[in-house]
Amino acid sequence: MPPRNAGRAADELRTVSFERGFYANAAGSVLVRSGDTVVLCTASVSDDLPPWLAGKGKGWVTAEYNMLPGSTSPRKQRDRKKVDGRTTEIQRLIGRSLRAIVDQKVLGELAVTVDCDVLKADGGTRTASITGAYLALHDALAACEEFSPAGRWPLTDSVAAVSAGIVAGETLLDLDYSEDSTAEVDMNVIMTGSGKFIEVQGTGEGGTFDAAQLQSLLAVCSKGIQELTDKQKAALA
Amino acid sequence: MPPRNAGRAADELRTVSFERGFYANAAGSVLVRSGDTVVLCTASVSDDLPPWLAGKGKGWVTAEYNMLPGSTSPRKQRDRKKVDGRTTEIQRLIGRSLRAIVDQKVLGELAVTVDCDVLKADGGTRTASITGAYLALHDALAACEEFSPAGRWPLTDSVAAVSAGIVAGETLLDLDYSEDSTAEVDMNVIMTGSGKFIEVQGTGEGGTFDAAQLQSLLAVCSKGIQELTDKQKAALA
Amino acid sequence: MPPRNAGRAADELRTVSFERGFYANAAGSVLVRSGDTVVLCTASVSDDLPPWLAGKGKGWVTAEYNMLPGSTSPRKQRDRKKVDGRTTEIQRLIGRSLRAIVDQKVLGELAVTVDCDVLKADGGTRTASITGAYLALHDALAACEEFSPAGRWPLTDSVAAVSAGIVAGETLLDLDYSEDSTAEVDMNVIMTGSGKFIEVQGTGEGGTFDAAQLQSLLAVCSKGIQELTDKQKAALA
Amino acid sequence: MPPRNAGRAADELRTVSFERGFYANAAGSVLVRSGDTVVLCTASVSDDLPPWLAGKGKGWVTAEYNMLPGSTSPRKQRDRKKVDGRTTEIQRLIGRSLRAIVDQKVLGELAVTVDCDVLKADGGTRTASITGAYLALHDALAACEEFSPAGRWPLTDSVAAVSAGIVAGETLLDLDYSEDSTAEVDMNVIMTGSGKFIEVQGTGEGGTFDAAQLQSLLAVCSKGIQELTDKQKAALA
Amino acid sequence: MPPRNAGRAADELRTVSFERGFYANAAGSVLVRSGDTVVLCTASVSDDLPPWLAGKGKGWVTAEYNMLPGSTSPRKQRDRKKVDGRTTEIQRLIGRSLRAIVDQKVLGELAVTVDCDVLKADGGTRTASITGAYLALHDALAACEEFSPAGRWPLTDSVAAVSAGIVAGETLLDLDYSEDSTAEVDMNVIMTGSGKFIEVQGTGEGGTFDAAQLQSLLAVCSKGIQELTDKQKAALA
Amino acid sequence: MPPRNAGRAADELRTVSFERGFYANAAGSVLVRSGDTVVLCTASVSDDLPPWLAGKGKGWVTAEYNMLPGSTSPRKQRDRKKVDGRTTEIQRLIGRSLRAIVDQKVLGELAVTVDCDVLKADGGTRTASITGAYLALHDALAACEEFSPAGRWPLTDSVAAVSAGIVAGETLLDLDYSEDSTAEVDMNVIMTGSGKFIEVQGTGEGGTFDAAQLQSLLAVCSKGIQELTDKQKAALA
Repeated sequence: MPPRNAGRAADELRTVSFERGFYANAAGSVLVRSGDTVVLCTASVSDDLPPWLAGKGKGWVTAEYNMLPGSTSPRKQRDRKKVDGRTTEIQRLIGRSLRAIVDQKVLGELAVTVDCDVLKADGGTRTASITGAYLALHDALAACEEFSPAGRWPLTDSVAAVSAGIVAGETLLDLDYSEDSTAEVDMNVIMTGSGKFIEVQGTGEGGTFDAAQLQSLLAVCSKGIQELTDKQKAALA
Repeated sequence: MPPRNAGRAADELRTVSFERGFYANAAGSVLVRSGDTVVLCTASVSDDLPPWLAGKGKGWVTAEYNMLPGSTSPRKQRDRKKVDGRTTEIQRLIGRSLRAIVDQKVLGELAVTVDCDVLKADGGTRTASITGAYLALHDALAACEEFSPAGRWPLTDSVAAVSAGIVAGETLLDLDYSEDSTAEVDMNVIMTGSGKFIEVQGTGEGGTFDAAQLQSLLAVCSKGIQELTDKQKAALA
Repeated sequence: MPPRNAGRAADELRTVSFERGFYANAAGSVLVRSGDTVVLCTASVSDDLPPWLAGKGKGWVTAEYNMLPGSTSPRKQRDRKKVDGRTTEIQRLIGRSLRAIVDQKVLGELAVTVDCDVLKADGGTRTASITGAYLALHDALAACEEFSPAGRWPLTDSVAAVSAGIVAGETLLDLDYSEDSTAEVDMNVIMTGSGKFIEVQGTGEGGTFDAAQLQSLLAVCSKGIQELTDKQKAALA
Repeated sequence: MPPRNAGRAADELRTVSFERGFYANAAGSVLVRSGDTVVLCTASVSDDLPPWLAGKGKGWVTAEYNMLPGSTSPRKQRDRKKVDGRTTEIQRLIGRSLRAIVDQKVLGELAVTVDCDVLKADGGTRTASITGAYLALHDALAACEEFSPAGRWPLTDSVAAVSAGIVAGETLLDLDYSEDSTAEVDMNVIMTGSGKFIEVQGTGEGGTFDAAQLQSLLAVCSKGIQELTDKQKAALA
Repeated sequence: MPPRNAGRAADELRTVSFERGFYANAAGSVLVRSGDTVVLCTASVSDDLPPWLAGKGKGWVTAEYNMLPGSTSPRKQRDRKKVDGRTTEIQRLIGRSLRAIVDQKVLGELAVTVDCDVLKADGGTRTASITGAYLALHDALAACEEFSPAGRWPLTDSVAAVSAGIVAGETLLDLDYSEDSTAEVDMNVIMTGSGKFIEVQGTGEGGTFDAAQLQSLLAVCSKGIQELTDKQKAALA
Repeated sequence: MPPRNAGRAADELRTVSFERGFYANAAGSVLVRSGDTVVLCTASVSDDLPPWLAGKGKGWVTAEYNMLPGSTSPRKQRDRKKVDGRTTEIQRLIGRSLRAIVDQKVLGELAVTVDCDVLKADGGTRTASITGAYLALHDALAACEEFSPAGRWPLTDSVAAVSAGIVAGETLLDLDYSEDSTAEVDMNVIMTGSGKFIEVQGTGEGGTFDAAQLQSLLAVCSKGIQELTDKQKAALA
C-alpha cells in the first residue's frame, strides 16, 4: 500500500476549513473546504411551505445538491432537463440528515432550503455538503429574529458526516477521489454531535465485505465525525 | 409493546414463498410473496448493451422497480412523466445488489434487465424485490443455451435482502407496513448466500440510534438473510 | 387456411376467466384471462374529482392502461417519460366505454380510476381490459356503502368488448397475437349487455375492406359480445 | 328538429373547396375549406426515413395535425410541451389513411410528412384534413422528378373522409361544430375513391346506438365520400 | 454588389400588405405579407390574467411566435416538446414591443395574447410579426365593447419594426432570406409611430461593425419604420 | 436625482477585479467581481464538437449561464426541468460575443464551453459574464499545448461588455440592481478591444427613448468598454 496523498495516516481527516458568511446578503452561507473538495452551502429561509405541511404549525428543511460543470475534469454536464439519480439520492440524504436535528415545531411554519453547490470535487462531496450545511442552517436560523442559539432554537444537536472505505484491503478514513475510485467498499456515516447515528450506508462497490470490515469502517467514521464536530464548534465559537 | 401481526416473534420473518415461471414465455419470472407484500420479478436477457460497455467483452445487469397503482390504498399515481426519487434509489440499489454476484466477463456481452413490479405493498418491497430478483436472474440465465448452473455460469453467489427496525424501542426483523411507518430506525441489509455484506443502510427516521442499537439491527438482519438464503436454495432445488 | 390455435372455430372466443378480488384490500380488482392474454383490472374510488367537475353533483370514471415490461417478448420499455400514442388511445377508449354505462348523477361527486395492467399480452389486450374493467368497476362500487346493485346503483348496463379481423380472407373472432399480426383488417366492437353499440372501430391494416366484409365483422363481434356478457353475468352471480 | 345551418339537407355535404399550390415553394400545399372549417395541408418529401425502415427499399408517409391557437374561440393553447391525446389519435389516423393508398415499394426510400394545420375549426377538422392531405400528397409526389401520375406512381387510389352523426335522433351527414357538440353518436368514415373502407369509427358520445342507426350512418357516409371523391378528381383535372 | 431581388433600392422596403379580418370569428386577425414572408397575427382577449397580476387593476399583453413546418424548405420540425431558444427570444421581443404602447391601467384586468404564426418565411419574420401584431391587437381591442379608438382606448401609440443589415459592405433595408444569410451585420429596430425607439438590436454575425456603420443602420431603419407606420395608418383608415 | 451608490459618477464603472486560476485544475477559471456582482467563469476545452461541425476543420465556442439559487434574495429556483427564456437569451449572447473574436479555423476541431455561474447578482450579470468569459477563454486556450498568445492563437481580439441605462432621465453607466430595476431604458453593448461593436441591445423597459438618448447611451458604453479592455489587459499582463 503506497502512502496516502499529503502523507495522511489511514485514520486521518483531510484539512477542513469553514468560511462563514461567504455571501454578504444571504441568510447563511458557508464555504467548506475538505482537502481539494470545495462546496458552497447556502441556507434560505422562507414561509413558502410545501402544501402538505401548511397550517400544521411545523416547519420543513430540504436540500438541493448540485455540481458546477467546472467542478470536475472533464466538465460535467448540467442537470437542466432532469436531475440524475445520484443527485436525487444525495439531496434527499442531506435533507434527512438536517431534519434529524431540527425540532419542526420550534421551527414553526418556516421552510428552509439549503443549497449545496460543489465548486470543486475531489471525493466526499456529499459528506462535506452535510457538514457544511449544518453551519449554513445554523447561521440562517440565527439571523432570524425569532430565534437565537441561547433562546428559542430549532436545532437540537449538530450534524456532521464522513466517508471511509476499504482500499487495497486497508480501512481508510475520508477518501479523496483517487482513493474512492479504487475502493472495494465505500461507507458514509452521518452522526450528531452527541454521538448518535443518523445514517449508515455501506456499499460493496463491485465487491463485498465481511463483518470485521464493517466494524472497522464504523469505528474510523465515528472517530472522524468526533473531530469534525469539534471543528464545527470551533467555527461557531 | 403489543404483539406483532400474525403473532410473529421479534426476530421472525414473514411467511415467504416464491412462484417460479409465473409467465410461461418470459425468460425468468418469479412471483415473490412476503406476508402481504407481492412482487413480480421478471428478468429479460438481450444483447442490447449500454453504449459505454459495447465491445468490452463484459455484460451488464440493471433493474427497474415500479409499484402498480392498485398496490397501495389510496391508489398510487403512475410514474409516467418522471420517475420519483425513491423509485430511482430503489432500482439503483437492486441493480447494484445483483451485479455484486455477477461475473460480468463470464456473462459476456449480454444485458439483463430485471423488472420488479410491486403488485401489493405491505412494507419491505425493496428487500422482497432483491430476494426475488435473484431467482428471476438465475432462471433467465439458466434458460440461456450458453449457461447452466453446473457449467459456465455467471453467478458467483446468491443474494437476499431483509429489513429490520426499532419500533417502540424494540428491534424487530422484517417490518410490515404498519411497523415500518412507526419505526424510529429503519435498516436494510443485503448479503450474499455466503454471508458477505453487499449493502448496509440504516436510517434514523426522524430519530437517531446509538451503537448498541446498530449492532442489534445488524445481528437480526444477518439471521434473517440466512433463512431467506435457505428458502431460495429450496426453491431452486 | 390452417386451423386456428387450440382448434378454435372461426367465430369462437378464446377461453375466458375472471378472478374477482385478486387483491384483498383493493376496492375492486379482477384478473382477466382471455387465452394467454392476462390483464389485472383494479378500480379505485376517491373523491378527488377533476377540477372542471367539482361541485356539479356528478362523478367521473377514467382509465389507465399499461403493459408491464415482461408482458411481451422482447421486453417492452416502460412509459416513464411520456405515454405513447397507442397507450393514450387505448385508455381513452376504455374510459369512454365505461362512462357509457355510468349514470354520473347517481354516482355523485366520486372519481373512479380503473387501472388495466397487462401482465401478459397475446392479442386483444384492449378488449380484455374493457371486459374486465366492467367487473372491477362493478365490484368497487358495490363495496361503497352508499351503493348496492339492488338499491341506488350508478351502472345502467354492462359493457364488454371483442375484436375480430380478416385473416387470409376469412372473418375470425377474437384474434390472438399471431392472427392479429397478419390480419388485413382489424375491428374492435364495444357493446352493452343490452345489445347497443358503444364503439365500432374497423381499420384496414395496410389493406382495405368492402361493405360485405364490414357486415361480417360486425355480425361475429355481436355474437362474441353476447357470450362475454353471459360470462360476466355468471361471474357476478 | 330545427333546419340545419345554411339550409342543408340531412345528407348534404357542406360547401367544399380545394386551393392547390397555396405556398409557392412547398412541394404540395392545399388549403381545404369545408364550410367554415379551414385546414392547410402541406406535404414535404425528404430522404430522412425512420431508422427502422432504412435500407429496406420502402418509403413511409406520416402526418402531423395541429390546431392554430386562433382557430377556436376561446383561443386554444399550443401543444408546446407535449402533444395531447386527441392530437396524437388524429395524426395517427391521417397517417394510416394515407398509407393505405401508397405503394411503399414504388415510393422507394422516401419519407413524406403531411402537415395538417387547422386555421379555423368548425367541426370535421380530421376528415377535412384527410381529404385535403390526399391532394397535398398527390401534388408533392407529382413534383418529384421520378414520379408522374401517368408513369411510375406510388398512389394506388385516392382517399377521402367524412363524418356523420345522430343529432336529436336524426342521421346527419358532415356535422359542423354546433351539430357535433350535441350529437349522441359520432361516426368518421374513411374510404378510397374506389369505394373500399379504410377506417370506420363510430362512437356513442355518452349514449349508445343500435344496429339500424349504425347502418344509416354507414350509408350516408358512403354517399358523402363518393361526392368528395368527385370533387377531388375535379380539383386535380 | 449585384442588384437586389425585384430590383429594390438599398433603402427600399419590400411590398407590404395587411389583410385584416382574416378569420371571421377571431377578435383580431391580420395576414401580413412582406415580400414572400407571410405571417398570420391573431389577437385573443380573455380575463385569464397571469397570477402575479390578478387583482391589480392592470392588464397584460403577451405573444407567441411559431413557424409552421411548411413555412421553410426543408420542412421545419414543430416545437412540440420544448420551445427553442430563438422562438423564445422572438416571442419575448414581440410581447415587450406591444406592451410599450399599451396603457395597462386603461386596459384593465384583461389578458391579450397575440399569436404570430409564420405561414411562409423569407426573412424578417420577427419584424413582420410585430408590425402585424399591432394591427391585430388594435382590432381585437376595438372589438371589445368597453373600448373604442375614439373613446377609452388602451393603446398610446402604434408600433412597427424593420430589419437592416450590412451585406457585402453595403447598408440594406429590410433583408430577405438570401440577403440575411450573407449579412455581416444584422439589425432589428422597433419604433413607435411617433418616432421613439422601443428596441434596437444590432448583431455582428461572425463579424463586427464600426460606429459609422451603426449610424447608417439606424438611419435606414428609422426611414423604413416611418413608411410602415404610414401603411398601418392607411390599413386602419 | 440622488447620488449613486458608493458615490459613483454617472459615467463611472463599478470596481472591477479578475481572479484568474480560481480552480487549480480547470483549464481556465476566472472569478469576476463588478461591485457586488460575482461571476465564476470557467472554460473547458474538449474535442466533442457538435455533429454539424464534425470533420470541417473548424472549432466552436459556446456558453452556459446560470444563477446559483443563493445569488439572489429571495432564493432563485434552479433551472432543473427547463431553462427559462432569459437564461437562454443570455447564454446565446455570451456565445455569440466570444465567437466574434475567435478564428474557428485556427481553433481547429475543438469545442470550448464557457460556464458563467453567477455567485452573487447585483445587476450587470450578463455583461460581467462576457467580460470574464473572455479571460477564461484566453487562459483555457493558453493552457493548450498547441496554442500560445505569441504563436498560433485562435483569438483575434479581446471582448468586453457593459450596460448603461436612463434612470430618472439621466444616462448612467454600469447599472447596479437598484438602478436597473428603476431604469426607463436599458442598454447592453459588447465591443472588441479594438473598438468594434459586436452587439448593441437597447430596450425601453415600459417606456421608449429618443434618438438623442440612444446616442448618449452608446457614448457612455464605448467609454466604459475601453476602461474594461484596459483592465483585462492589465490582468493578463
